[in-house]
Formats: sequence, C-alpha cells, structure tokens
Amino acid sequence: MSISHIEHIGIAVKNLEESIRFYEDKLGLECYSIEEVADQKVRTAFFMVGQTKVELLESTDPEGPIGKYIEKKGEGVHHIAFAVDNIDESLKGLEEKGVRLIDQAPRKGAEGLDIAFLHPKSTHGVLMELCQDKKK
Amino acid sequence: MSISHIEHIGIAVKNLEESIRFYEDKLGLECYSIEEVADQKVRTAFFMVGQTKVELLESTDPEGPIGKYIEKKGEGVHHIAFAVDNIDESLKGLEEKGVRLIDQAPRKGAEGLDIAFLHPKSTHGVLMELCQDKKK
Repeated sequence: MSISHIEHIGIAVKNLEESIRFYEDKLGLECYSIEEVADQKVRTAFFMVGQTKVELLESTDPEGPIGKYIEKKGEGVHHIAFAVDNIDESLKGLEEKGVRLIDQAPRKGAEGLDIAFLHPKSTHGVLMELCQDKKK
Repeated sequence: MSISHIEHIGIAVKNLEESIRFYEDKLGLECYSIEEVADQKVRTAFFMVGQTKVELLESTDPEGPIGKYIEKKGEGVHHIAFAVDNIDESLKGLEEKGVRLIDQAPRKGAEGLDIAFLHPKSTHGVLMELCQDKKK
C-alpha cells in the first residue's frame, strides 16, 4: 500500500454556510466547490490548503452518518482521507493484515473519487478513508 | 493571514509504540522522529505524508492536555495545524476578527516551530494550531 498524500480532512459542521464564512473570512481560505452527496446524506464544501482539501460536511438527514456523529460528538474532525495509487490492492492488503474495513470494495465519493473507509476500531480511533482518482 | 498548507495533523493515542506499529506495518508510513515535548506533557511520533505530517501524541501525564482528552473522548484526531507565513500577524488579525485564542502569543512546539492554538469554540469545533518555522 502506497500513500502519496493526505487527500482531504473531513470536518462535520452543523451549518455549512456559517462554517464556510469562518474558513473564508477568518482563515482566508477559498471555498471552490459545494456538492451534495445524496448517498452519504451530506452537503459538502471544499477548500484547497496546499496539497490537501478541507471538506466540510453538513448532514441533510439526522439519521445519516454525519447527523448521528454531530448528535453524539458535536462538530469536529470526522475523518482523514489518504490518497493511494491502487485502492483495490490497498484494501486487499489491509484486510490480509487484519484491518477491519467498513467498505469491502470501493464506492463513489465526492468529486468522483473511488473511496473506502477503514473502521476506527482498527486504526487507533481515527476514521480513515482511502481515495483513488481513477480518472487520472 | 496566509495559510500555505496543513503542517500536521495531531492524533491522540494511548500507546505510542503500538500506534507507530499500526502506521508503519499496516499503512506503510515511516516514523522519522520521536520527540518528548515536556511543556505539553506528551511524547510525539512523526510521519511525513506528502506535504503534511501525522503527529501521534501520547500523554506522559494523565493531567496533561492529551491525557485529559483521551480520558474524555478516547483516541482520535486532536488538532489540525496550519502553516502560516507570519504567526504574529496571523494571531493579531484573528483576534481583531473576534476569534478566541488559546495562546495570545506564539510559543515553542515540537520540531522547534513557533505555534499557537485557536479555541475550538471559535472554529466550529476543531482545535486549530498555527505554525511558523522561523528558522526558515
């Protein structure tokens, strides 16, 4: 498994517009895209910070993953996504090494990337995502 | 305020050696440094992931910030650190814009960087750190 960089950091927020204002007006970052991911029941806003994106996540449904996360833990960092060169092989290798996967096979995430989550019980507490841009 | 990239992601862990093994053996990353930061009551381990470091943090004292964090929330992402070109001006600008600071002035952090934390109540739930490498 070869990780090239941190593709994005996913941050759960209660109100996307208020949070975008904070990242733009206070931190001086620029939101370049807002996208709804119906499958995940979220609206997302993206900011480029060097090589890595900040992905703000607002729930569109209290029963969705971000809705439940905010209900339980409040706003904050939800997951870290690593860019890998081959997501299928990476998942296979991790499973062979005993890492618990949430997604056994990749699925489509925001920005058309192939993504899969690892279980935080297997990663010392961090919800980790693998991403591969198969269009590249 | 000008953020160039994400300098590091700080992750609270219970046992540094066990976590290092996970990041090395399962994720294929390489720990390049272990450092004790007495001031913060932590031992840290660093991994380079593209432009950004992963900084694992193990508490050396249950009453220290990471000890208390793990007691309350368990293992997981503790903070995100942004690299800025001028930390003094950045802090001044944020304060003028009403952002609550934990550190009014920079202090020395791991790897000799000048660092300062922003209060998560002001940042929509994320403990944020600013870093400047004044040796550069």
